[in-house]
Amino acid sequence: MSPGPTRVAEEVLLKMADTIIHHRTPQFVSVLKSVNEKLKKVFGTNNPVCTFASSGTGAMEASIVNFLSKGDKAIIIRGGKFGERFGEICLAYGVEAINYDVPWGEGCNATVVAGLLEKNPGVKAVYSTLAETSTGVVNDIKQLGAIVSKTGAILIVDAISGLTADEMKADEWGVDVIVGGSQKGLMLPPGLGFMSVSPKAQKFIETSNLPKFYFNLKEALKAYAKDDTPWTPAVSLIMGLDSILDMILKEGVDATLARHAKLAEATRSAVKALGLELYPKSPSNAVTTVKVPSNIDGAAIVKKLRDEQGITIAGGQDVLTGKVFRIAHLGYMDEYDTISAIAGLEIVLSQLGYKFEFGKGVGKAIEMFAKSAK
Amino acid sequence: MSPGPTRVAEEVLLKMADTIIHHRTPQFVSVLKSVNEKLKKVFGTNNPVCTFASSGTGAMEASIVNFLSKGDKAIIIRGGKFGERFGEICLAYGVEAINYDVPWGEGCNATVVAGLLEKNPGVKAVYSTLAETSTGVVNDIKQLGAIVSKTGAILIVDAISGLTADEMKADEWGVDVIVGGSQKGLMLPPGLGFMSVSPKAQKFIETSNLPKFYFNLKEALKAYAKDDTPWTPAVSLIMGLDSILDMILKEGVDATLARHAKLAEATRSAVKALGLELYPKSPSNAVTTVKVPSNIDGAAIVKKLRDEQGITIAGGQDVLTGKVFRIAHLGYMDEYDTISAIAGLEIVLSQLGYKFEFGKGVGKAIEMFAKSAK
Repeated sequence: MSPGPTRVAEEVLLKMADTIIHHRTPQFVSVLKSVNEKLKKVFGTNNPVCTFASSGTGAMEASIVNFLSKGDKAIIIRGGKFGERFGEICLAYGVEAINYDVPWGEGCNATVVAGLLEKNPGVKAVYSTLAETSTGVVNDIKQLGAIVSKTGAILIVDAISGLTADEMKADEWGVDVIVGGSQKGLMLPPGLGFMSVSPKAQKFIETSNLPKFYFNLKEALKAYAKDDTPWTPAVSLIMGLDSILDMILKEGVDATLARHAKLAEATRSAVKALGLELYPKSPSNAVTTVKVPSNIDGAAIVKKLRDEQGITIAGGQDVLTGKVFRIAHLGYMDEYDTISAIAGLEIVLSQLGYKFEFGKGVGKAIEMFAKSAK
Repeated sequence: MSPGPTRVAEEVLLKMADTIIHHRTPQFVSVLKSVNEKLKKVFGTNNPVCTFASSGTGAMEASIVNFLSKGDKAIIIRGGKFGERFGEICLAYGVEAINYDVPWGEGCNATVVAGLLEKNPGVKAVYSTLAETSTGVVNDIKQLGAIVSKTGAILIVDAISGLTADEMKADEWGVDVIVGGSQKGLMLPPGLGFMSVSPKAQKFIETSNLPKFYFNLKEALKAYAKDDTPWTPAVSLIMGLDSILDMILKEGVDATLARHAKLAEATRSAVKALGLELYPKSPSNAVTTVKVPSNIDGAAIVKKLRDEQGITIAGGQDVLTGKVFRIAHLGYMDEYDTISAIAGLEIVLSQLGYKFEFGKGVGKAIEMFAKSAK
């Protein structure tokens, strides 16, 4: 129940345990061809979606080094650890980051971004997260897209955690680049990074002078056009990807989103029924971030759940260490996993001396699931 | 039987199909701790060996961007496609490559390198491959180490293909940086890159000004010291790595090398017995590269073996396309796999009109295996 790595379906695990096939064969090309078509549907875009053998951070780096040049200006929406990472990569490559610091727990305000774009006419790109995993916030990408798409800048969205959990109509909303990772809503082990590229963003590749090799998008797109990859792909993970994309498309992209919304809503209601408070003002459906009640040891909640109850949730990161815990809804998960997590939480909270009536949280979730059942 | 991805042992495949554990847990830290210790033994070094979620090319990039600065000079030993790749990465990052072009099929001459080092006193690093997969050549790293270690430059060896197949006593021979990949002698699926770092090389990190983020070695080493990784590691592949390192250490590093040597020698003798000619002058034990006989379609050998006989070997790359075929000895493989490959080759060669006596190749291999059997 952590916001990645998420649980992997047994049939996908077994698909990845199949005999490794060679990547320069017609057999593997046909797998990549199928994967590439299905990725577009799941990413909600008609643009190519390139796959890297890397974690999501690698794809984040790719979304900077391929579009920008030294000294370029980029607006970085920073409302958590992962928004900040975009800024750190800019710093490493000599891109001038114009930071928009959103208070942690809040979503970004698109009009502030509009103001920054006006004040800084040369800005090349705007970087945002969809779901900021560290805070549990979902950003309003639709509004952001409406503003950025009217300018010469491109909009890059880190959807590593949000994809399949929080709605994002990338093409309709004007998102130029979607950055993704395998170990969140795509329910795979970590090790694959993804990046979609709009025609507008493709033009930026031509002028970008930042150095790159492994993450060179021009090479990646050239190979992509032939359902190939420039370097050796992570074959077993791609076999799993082929399989999980089938599962997601069978459930349906909208149904997958609705399932995440339902599990997230039930969790939010359940923790509130236990007298707990949500941390984010605009909560994502990828992960529910809950404030640790006063006088309770936040780290102990996570540790006891993991080591005694066998349920892995996440604690807070950085300034939120010990102050929040995070229950994810991502991946291969249904109502009963959510009920188990809330039940485990009730057990652990009671052991730590938190006062509440047993079943209040779980009861609320059950009630909501009962009402939504067909 | 291709030089990567190689066959993966069933027990390793199943280990990777186990439930994914979270990477920021004591449970995973203990796996990484065990992996880090075992990697040193298999890489034959006392230096730290960092693991990246990337293909081997990512680790090659890491071996340049972390040690060099813009305008630095590096000697690139180019005797095949993978030696050339080091030069391409240098070009992308503004490092001045002093190319030593070794004729394809030949090993490098250490005295030429000594001469280049003398003529170019400012050279920071020398890049070589151990086994050049594209040609099947093994380079004499011992001689190279003896020369480079006397200078201020560091020696970086791409051992992606050679590791566990061709001997390399890294610390004894003065290799500062070993670059590795998962899908060759380590018998895993592709998706992990490795890099060892000597104390001499670690000093280079401090002065390097090339931009990097995902492959930032300073961050990687900081995390490594705590048996952690800076970014999300490829969890399932690392679980497999833990398992395969146990298997390799159980067989023994020397015994693994000896097995590869035996299979390679038998293959070389078998193809010669069929009247075929080896391509490389100093053949690696990772892969045997054989010249396609005149009037025979080289691509058809590979295609028929794969599609009709179910045996994957590799063809030639670049200038060698259609001119050679390559049978690898890497990984989870024994005498009977080698016999099967030679038998398959005999079948396909006969179908393509090549004249020889059936069993001549296989017979030679069997004879050698019989003699070496205990």
